[in-house]
Amino acid sequence: MNTDEIARLVGGTLQGEGKIEIRGVAALEAATSDELAFAEGDRALALAAQSQAGCILIPAGKSVSGRTTIAVAHPKLAFIRAAEALHPPPVVAPGIHRTAIVSPEATLAANVSVGPHAVIERGAGVGAGTRLGAGVYLGEDVQVGAHCVLYPHVTVYPGARLGDRVILHAGVTIGGDGFGYVFAEGRHRKFPQLGQVIVEDDVEIGCNTTVDRGSLGKTVIGQGTKIDNLVQVAHNVRIGRHCVIAAQTGISGSVEIGDYVIMGGQVGIGDHVRVEDRAVLGGGAGILPGKIVRRGTTVWGRPARPLDEFKKMYANLSNLPRLAEKVKELSRRLAGKYE
Amino acid sequence: MNTDEIARLVGGTLQGEGKIEIRGVAALEAATSDELAFAEGDRALALAAQSQAGCILIPAGKSVSGRTTIAVAHPKLAFIRAAEALHPPPVVAPGIHRTAIVSPEATLAANVSVGPHAVIERGAGVGAGTRLGAGVYLGEDVQVGAHCVLYPHVTVYPGARLGDRVILHAGVTIGGDGFGYVFAEGRHRKFPQLGQVIVEDDVEIGCNTTVDRGSLGKTVIGQGTKIDNLVQVAHNVRIGRHCVIAAQTGISGSVEIGDYVIMGGQVGIGDHVRVEDRAVLGGGAGILPGKIVRRGTTVWGRPARPLDEFKKMYANLSNLPRLAEKVKELSRRLAGKYE
Amino acid sequence: MNTDEIARLVGGTLQGEGKIEIRGVAALEAATSDELAFAEGDRALALAAQSQAGCILIPAGKSVSGRTTIAVAHPKLAFIRAAEALHPPPVVAPGIHRTAIVSPEATLAANVSVGPHAVIERGAGVGAGTRLGAGVYLGEDVQVGAHCVLYPHVTVYPGARLGDRVILHAGVTIGGDGFGYVFAEGRHRKFPQLGQVIVEDDVEIGCNTTVDRGSLGKTVIGQGTKIDNLVQVAHNVRIGRHCVIAAQTGISGSVEIGDYVIMGGQVGIGDHVRVEDRAVLGGGAGILPGKIVRRGTTVWGRPARPLDEFKKMYANLSNLPRLAEKVKELSRRLAGKYE
Repeated sequence: MNTDEIARLVGGTLQGEGKIEIRGVAALEAATSDELAFAEGDRALALAAQSQAGCILIPAGKSVSGRTTIAVAHPKLAFIRAAEALHPPPVVAPGIHRTAIVSPEATLAANVSVGPHAVIERGAGVGAGTRLGAGVYLGEDVQVGAHCVLYPHVTVYPGARLGDRVILHAGVTIGGDGFGYVFAEGRHRKFPQLGQVIVEDDVEIGCNTTVDRGSLGKTVIGQGTKIDNLVQVAHNVRIGRHCVIAAQTGISGSVEIGDYVIMGGQVGIGDHVRVEDRAVLGGGAGILPGKIVRRGTTVWGRPARPLDEFKKMYANLSNLPRLAEKVKELSRRLAGKYE
Repeated sequence: MNTDEIARLVGGTLQGEGKIEIRGVAALEAATSDELAFAEGDRALALAAQSQAGCILIPAGKSVSGRTTIAVAHPKLAFIRAAEALHPPPVVAPGIHRTAIVSPEATLAANVSVGPHAVIERGAGVGAGTRLGAGVYLGEDVQVGAHCVLYPHVTVYPGARLGDRVILHAGVTIGGDGFGYVFAEGRHRKFPQLGQVIVEDDVEIGCNTTVDRGSLGKTVIGQGTKIDNLVQVAHNVRIGRHCVIAAQTGISGSVEIGDYVIMGGQVGIGDHVRVEDRAVLGGGAGILPGKIVRRGTTVWGRPARPLDEFKKMYANLSNLPRLAEKVKELSRRLAGKYE
Repeated sequence: MNTDEIARLVGGTLQGEGKIEIRGVAALEAATSDELAFAEGDRALALAAQSQAGCILIPAGKSVSGRTTIAVAHPKLAFIRAAEALHPPPVVAPGIHRTAIVSPEATLAANVSVGPHAVIERGAGVGAGTRLGAGVYLGEDVQVGAHCVLYPHVTVYPGARLGDRVILHAGVTIGGDGFGYVFAEGRHRKFPQLGQVIVEDDVEIGCNTTVDRGSLGKTVIGQGTKIDNLVQVAHNVRIGRHCVIAAQTGISGSVEIGDYVIMGGQVGIGDHVRVEDRAVLGGGAGILPGKIVRRGTTVWGRPARPLDEFKKMYANLSNLPRLAEKVKELSRRLAGKYE
């Protein structure tokens, strides 16, 4: 694509040369003369003047002298669109690898690609255009939607349902037994783990993340939610739509999470917590069992508090040595002068 | 099974209709007329009156008017027993899948089921009725007991020993090298990792959890202990019997854990810690290296303290802004009045 | 090997019997008459007198009466050397298992061993003497150096590069997509994840650890660095040489880590942090986004502080109930006496 074509694609205003051939996208500081970069913010715009990029996406109303630029309302989003056009996903020839084991009672739609050593059990279904990597395992009655990508060594336990355009990265497990026991007669008896996992459309889940099935009901991950690597989602958790959950976060059983919730990494959420829509949980935040995080609140710390309160507490904590000193001094003055 | 039969099975007292056909178990609020539910606690018993369940297990001495109930000493435990009868584990036909690679020098007992693409190396042994999922890997000389279930993509390194009725969920690794190095001549030299892992009878381990071999000695997980997903058990750790360890907990090298210990999620235990019998470690608790958690103690926080002390400290912490204010006021009064 | 030969191998001074046949290494308390142990520190040296070991490595200048010993400058290092000689890694016959799927467009050097059900895609290369375990997956254009060991179920996404003598334990994923999205029009759009992972020589990575590719640039793990189990390394992270990173640590996007850095378990590092050479991050430490940990500093706590400061703060925190009491008392005295 040349720069004119990219400007049209992203609906932006070209300044400079329209016939520069662009072969890919790159970071501002690494881009070469046939690559597209983007610059948002003052620091990036200052760097843009020195960039070797063939073309730079910049915010509307800005300019970079001497460079070919495309001005758009949202440069980073335009960059995503251009990258999708310049780097289309690898074309994988549909077909079932000869070493894959596909039950005759499984149902595969058109244009499905099944990698080496994948296993698809009885009753499972795979939607059109979905790609299953090497060694992927789909248990009995698993339903996978259309245009999904399951990377190598993903395991989906029996009965789970994935929507369309779901991406599961390598080593993800969906539908493992929940962690529920009843202690009786000196040992832990396993509570029945008979429920299901529902992963809705457009969900992406990172490497080696684990999502347990509901014990009796369902574990649900809502449409458009994105989950990072090594996250734990326990039995009967319900996560809403368009949430973002960073790596190594752990969500205990029966937690309810609203829509558009954001969690940093290593968050820990006790069981039966409710996190309402648009709440933000800072990295490492810990929510005690049964608590409610209110709509739109930002919380921080362990146990978590509203961000303002956390900051104040933290400042006081830092000031504690001085406070102790002050109390000692007051004590001395009181003693010395008046006793 | 009908309700009479279930009452007999769980040793309970039926109130209502004995010939209701029950096909499965379900949660109180979701159960239908051919399903069994249970109700414990006032809230659940209140809900029970509205439940559509065909039959409800309730505590002895309670009743729910207008519903068919079975009164038992321990409704949840009775529910487990009924669920085991109503939902027997899937019958897997014994046999070795044609794509599995089994060494001629491995020993497989009767009625073993080996899934597609599983690999069993030389000297390994598998006990009667054990089921190995797709892609399971058993290294040389691994011994697996009877009636175990290893889900897809489990890796067992050479020499590990699993007891009977062990359940390893998808992606579990047993026997990886411990993390031990000696820094010399400007680089980290690997300490020998030659030890073993012993997993005793009735242990269950969740998805993607990792258990390292002993460096020289053994890593041991005691009988009946249950471990959740994404837990790290380092080299030479010894975990006692009937412990419960929730997700994402990390246990460092050479830690000793007694019997009946309970740990919440995301607990972190430094090396050479000793956790005595029946201790409880709250979610996110952190134990500094070399510490001892005494028998029966409940600890909380990071670094962990006894629960009472933690609560008091935490209350004081919350009160810190007021305390600082008070000190300022005292200081003013002292200055204003007497200087 | 006999004790004379071991003394020569480690360059130590034998005291006692030179012709004792030694067949392996063991811990001091478990070693038998044909095994070698080591003793460092007073406690171990005291134990050495009772050890059944055939021979004990001890520090130069020390002696253990009645036992055959070899005195060396660094007993633990000498123990490593002897262990390497006594327990050579298992000889794996080179060859490609008949069930492995190797692209005709992949390049395999001499003496490579490829396990059952491994998959090597087009354009990938594997160096001399490297061993790929069962089910290992190498994506397109992956380059693996010489004398590496990849344990079962490792997944390497397309384009990653591993140096020589790299060890990846079971379930490791290299090159998964970074966790980057742009929120626009009510949903999260995936930022392009087109970058690479570079793992340099002599790196070892523990079970089920995940290393993401750079979004546009590279994720780099420097020479000789050792990473434990279940660690998360995000996109565009750069880790220097000879670092040690313990289990369950999470490193966010674009973090830069110097050389010889040490991290305990469950450390959490926010994005764009810089950790300079030889810094030490205590177990569970949390570094806020954008912070710098200075060269050689030891930090602790969450948010992390220099160790001295953390200790002082922690002592003050423990003392908080008494401080509150003191303030109350001052208040009473001030009120009682002078108002």
